[in-house]
Amino acid sequence: MRYQLFYWPGIQGRGEFVRLALEDAGAAYDDVARSNTGMDKMMAMMNGGADKRPPFAPPFLKAGKLVIAQAAEILFYFGPRLKLAPGDEAGRLWLHQLQLTVTDFVKEIHDTHHPIAGSLYYEDQMPEAKKFTHYFLKERVPKYLGYFETVLNKSGGPYLLGRKFSYVDLSLFQLIEGLRYAFPNAMTRIERKIPRVVAVRDKVAARPRIKVYLASERRLAFNESGIFRHYPELDD
Amino acid sequence: MRYQLFYWPGIQGRGEFVRLALEDAGAAYDDVARSNTGMDKMMAMMNGGADKRPPFAPPFLKAGKLVIAQAAEILFYFGPRLKLAPGDEAGRLWLHQLQLTVTDFVKEIHDTHHPIAGSLYYEDQMPEAKKFTHYFLKERVPKYLGYFETVLNKSGGPYLLGRKFSYVDLSLFQLIEGLRYAFPNAMTRIERKIPRVVAVRDKVAARPRIKVYLASERRLAFNESGIFRHYPELDD
Repeated sequence: MRYQLFYWPGIQGRGEFVRLALEDAGAAYDDVARSNTGMDKMMAMMNGGADKRPPFAPPFLKAGKLVIAQAAEILFYFGPRLKLAPGDEAGRLWLHQLQLTVTDFVKEIHDTHHPIAGSLYYEDQMPEAKKFTHYFLKERVPKYLGYFETVLNKSGGPYLLGRKFSYVDLSLFQLIEGLRYAFPNAMTRIERKIPRVVAVRDKVAARPRIKVYLASERRLAFNESGIFRHYPELDD
Repeated sequence: MRYQLFYWPGIQGRGEFVRLALEDAGAAYDDVARSNTGMDKMMAMMNGGADKRPPFAPPFLKAGKLVIAQAAEILFYFGPRLKLAPGDEAGRLWLHQLQLTVTDFVKEIHDTHHPIAGSLYYEDQMPEAKKFTHYFLKERVPKYLGYFETVLNKSGGPYLLGRKFSYVDLSLFQLIEGLRYAFPNAMTRIERKIPRVVAVRDKVAARPRIKVYLASERRLAFNESGIFRHYPELDD
C-alpha cells in the first residue's frame, strides 16, 4: 500500500504527526501537496466534488479508496498496519485516547499565537497572545506533559505503552521539539519535572529512520507559519 | 452490559454527547458522578491509583474492565454496539471523523467565554471573549455548520449517513440546541443557510426516547457553568 498524504506545504503543522509515523515505519508515501500540481489536487478533494465524504481540513490520507482526515484518526487507522500500535481493541483505544490528548494540546499550542481568530495576523492579537501564553506556560504545559510523565511512570517505561514503541511516542517527540523551538526559556524550567518524557524524545531522535528523516529535505524546518512559532516576547 | 458514565455533575458539557447516545439507544447506564459518592469515585479514577491507564479528563466510560475517555472515542467504541453506527471500518471511520470535527467545534464554543484561560473567570476575560466571539459567529459557526450542511447534501439526507441514523446526528442536535441557547440572535440569522442541519435537529427532537429524556430530570438545563453559555453581550 502506497499512501498519499495531503497537508499544507511549507509547514510541519498537524501533518507532521502523520509524517513521523510514515517515516519511522519506512512506509511508501507521497506528500502530495508538496509536488507541482499537489495543491490543486488537495483543494479539489476538500471541495468534495463527486466525493460523498469530503474532509473538513488537512491533514488527510488516501489509502486505496479510503480517505481519512484528522491526524489522530489517521494514526489510529494505520497504527497496527505500520506496526506502531498493538492490534487488540483495548490497546488501540488506549493509544488513540492518548493521541486525542495530544490533539487537544496541539490546539492550545496553536492558540498561543492565535487566541482570538485564525483569520487575523498574530500582530493583530499580540496582547491577547501574551496573556494566553502566560497561563499556557504556567498551567497547561505542566498539566499535559505531567500527564504523559504519569503515564510513563505507570507503564514502567521507557515508552508510553511500556516496552512496546508506538506512534504516540513519536508525537511526544514532536511536542517536545516544537515546544523547545517556540519556548526555549520556559522549556528549560519545565523539562526538569518530566525526565521520562524527555527520555522518550531522546530515544525517538536516535531511531535510525528518524535520524535519516530529520536530516533530509523532507523534514521542513520549524517556522513562523506553523503551529510551533518562536516569538521571543511570548517566552518566559 | 451496564455502562458507567463519569462526568462533572451539574453541567451537560462534553458528557451530553455521550448521554444522548445512551438515552437514544435505551442503554442501561449510571451517571456516576451525580450519585452521592460519585464525585469521589470519579476523582479517584482520574488520579489513577493502581490503574495503569488513567484518563486525562472527564467524560470517561467504564464498560466492563475497559475505561475509555474522550467523548468522540466513547461514541466510536459503543456506536455499533448501540446500533448508532455502521459496523464496517470505512463507515465507522467516517463517522468518527465527523465526530472529531464536532469535538473541534465544541472547543471553540467553549473558548467564546474562556479565550484566555480556563482558570480565570469569564468576568476576567470579557473584552477578549467579545473579540473572540465576534469572529466565531462571523466565520467559524458558518464554516462548521456549513460543512455539515454540505455533508447532508452529499449524503442525500435526511441524516449525515443518508438514510441511516447515527450518533453524529444526535451530536448535531446538541450543537444546535446549545448554540440557540447561547446565541439566539446570531443563530436566527445563521440557521437560514443550514436547513438540512436544522431538519436533523427537528428529527432528533421528535425521537421517542429523546423526548422522554429531554423531559426528564436526567437532562440538565443549560447554564452558565457549562460549555454553551448565554451571555447577551456576546450575542450579535
